[in-house]
Amino acid sequence: MRVAVDVMGGDRAPGEILKGCWQAAELLSGDDMVHLVGDGAIINDALSTNPVPANKLKHYNVVATTQIIEMDDSPVESIRAKPDSSIAVMCRMVSKGEADAVISAGNTGACVAASQLRMRLLPGVARPGIAVVLPTFHGPVVVCDVGAQVIAKPKYLQQFALMASAYSHDLFNIETPRVALLSIGEEDAKGTGTVKEARKLLRDEPLINFIGNIEGKDVFKGTCDVIVCDGFVGNILLKFTEGLSEGIFQTMAAEMEQESAEVFEKFKGVAKRIWARHDWQEHGGAPLLGVGGICMICHGRSEAKAIKNAIRVAKQLVNSGVNAKITARIAQSIQVTDE
Amino acid sequence: MRVAVDVMGGDRAPGEILKGCWQAAELLSGDDMVHLVGDGAIINDALSTNPVPANKLKHYNVVATTQIIEMDDSPVESIRAKPDSSIAVMCRMVSKGEADAVISAGNTGACVAASQLRMRLLPGVARPGIAVVLPTFHGPVVVCDVGAQVIAKPKYLQQFALMASAYSHDLFNIETPRVALLSIGEEDAKGTGTVKEARKLLRDEPLINFIGNIEGKDVFKGTCDVIVCDGFVGNILLKFTEGLSEGIFQTMAAEMEQESAEVFEKFKGVAKRIWARHDWQEHGGAPLLGVGGICMICHGRSEAKAIKNAIRVAKQLVNSGVNAKITARIAQSIQVTDE
Repeated sequence: MRVAVDVMGGDRAPGEILKGCWQAAELLSGDDMVHLVGDGAIINDALSTNPVPANKLKHYNVVATTQIIEMDDSPVESIRAKPDSSIAVMCRMVSKGEADAVISAGNTGACVAASQLRMRLLPGVARPGIAVVLPTFHGPVVVCDVGAQVIAKPKYLQQFALMASAYSHDLFNIETPRVALLSIGEEDAKGTGTVKEARKLLRDEPLINFIGNIEGKDVFKGTCDVIVCDGFVGNILLKFTEGLSEGIFQTMAAEMEQESAEVFEKFKGVAKRIWARHDWQEHGGAPLLGVGGICMICHGRSEAKAIKNAIRVAKQLVNSGVNAKITARIAQSIQVTDE
Repeated sequence: MRVAVDVMGGDRAPGEILKGCWQAAELLSGDDMVHLVGDGAIINDALSTNPVPANKLKHYNVVATTQIIEMDDSPVESIRAKPDSSIAVMCRMVSKGEADAVISAGNTGACVAASQLRMRLLPGVARPGIAVVLPTFHGPVVVCDVGAQVIAKPKYLQQFALMASAYSHDLFNIETPRVALLSIGEEDAKGTGTVKEARKLLRDEPLINFIGNIEGKDVFKGTCDVIVCDGFVGNILLKFTEGLSEGIFQTMAAEMEQESAEVFEKFKGVAKRIWARHDWQEHGGAPLLGVGGICMICHGRSEAKAIKNAIRVAKQLVNSGVNAKITARIAQSIQVTDE
């Protein structure tokens, strides 16, 4: 497995990104290669003082770039305007067959645009979707899409279900992941026209283990392994989860502190355990499913742990051949028009 | 104020609904009248044994009906097929000038359909929107729409902002409520075409105190008083809030119980306090803004407290003349086409 890591992308780049790459050393063997893409001076300096064992150094390679895509740069324009940025260079490496996977905690839109432009879409795929792992109280749930397509046609939702099922299967070893469609009621008649049309496609598709619509309140109840929605709703939901969870824990911490120092200490221990068990960084990042390579998009706030885990997941997906499975399923699925 | 209450609607009807009506006795004075709409035998029986002081009994009146709209009945069809259902009768009472407000914890779709059909829309209003109060850690936030319109045109979102601002003003005494548009990024370029178009309308409208787009993670940060979105996203978000909050508290309770009986007791006390402070039942229900009367839609799980508070809010809105304010603002606002 050869993975290109964007050393320049993310709120904590380059420090935490590089640290994550070093922590991944224990995962690397055989021909595995981590291409460190970004400012050559910074990376070489870090390499010379890094804590990686000497026998693992052969798994690291520096790819020096001169440009940086900022978080607020326009995705498509920045890819054209900054051909020597880490994101653009990484995606070109995949297109040239020099890397199997890319990882970035930088500008998500630019990653999506560059991946689509350089890696191209897998045969038959209409649009790629970002699949994020949502840690619920009953285990992880894959939500697709969380931001690549703000508007989704029924066909895209059908393909998100197929692709996310393959991902869930390969990542969590779930034989036939249960797929739900996010809507505002369980009945056929509920939802937008797109959702109603997609519901039929999901129901009729033998390759999808469709369990029906799911409402917002049931997302955390452990009834499904994959949730399909458009990227607008998915992105709002993902960020909402972050804000609400943090808010509840903060409010509770403030209240517990009022009780007594002892109770507050107990609470902190419990909160820490719960956070650890539901830590998004354990899952590394979210793959952009449907492109001709593995593209792991990490949270802008990613720390070393997230980067290390993204490398782990990228290796898992490259080795499991998830893209070959996606291509096969898309080819075997009921073909629908793009409308 | 004359309010018609649907005694037959909701998971805990008729018991909790009637209990809520009795608890509202202390709020009733002058010409105030609560019309108890539903099964005559049940209501009269409850009236004869109810705990309302004798001097308040004059504020209650029985309106016997013979039909019931079930939770899973088709909204529009049931209104036509069941003209003597409590929901249909209540909305007719408003259209005939016999009531100012209706309250129901029953079939939401049927309430929306009957209100639109019987009360008609206020002059200039394109579509009504349901405005729910979301209790956040920094105070209440009004979210509109949470389910009346699964697809919203930019004009609807502009009007939701105007109507929800008037509601927030009258309910919470906020002079110029800060309005935000729910999207997937703060920038102009983020979101669907509808959201981008709506953003311009909200920004250019002098009657709206627009603070910009808001992302899912910032909903609970106290930066706005009103959030505007389409009913599909709003409904998913509302139910998601319920599911996630309950899940976090349940998970934490299970962990706290492992610690010690004493710690668990402390936690329960704290959790109870936090729930009480963020109890949706304190706000009674969600008005359907834009119709020619006050229509309060209550959660299907409503208990007596919610019904009592819905009566309180209905009285407040009737007395404040919120609909006259909405009509005036819609007339003064920048007129845009329906497309």
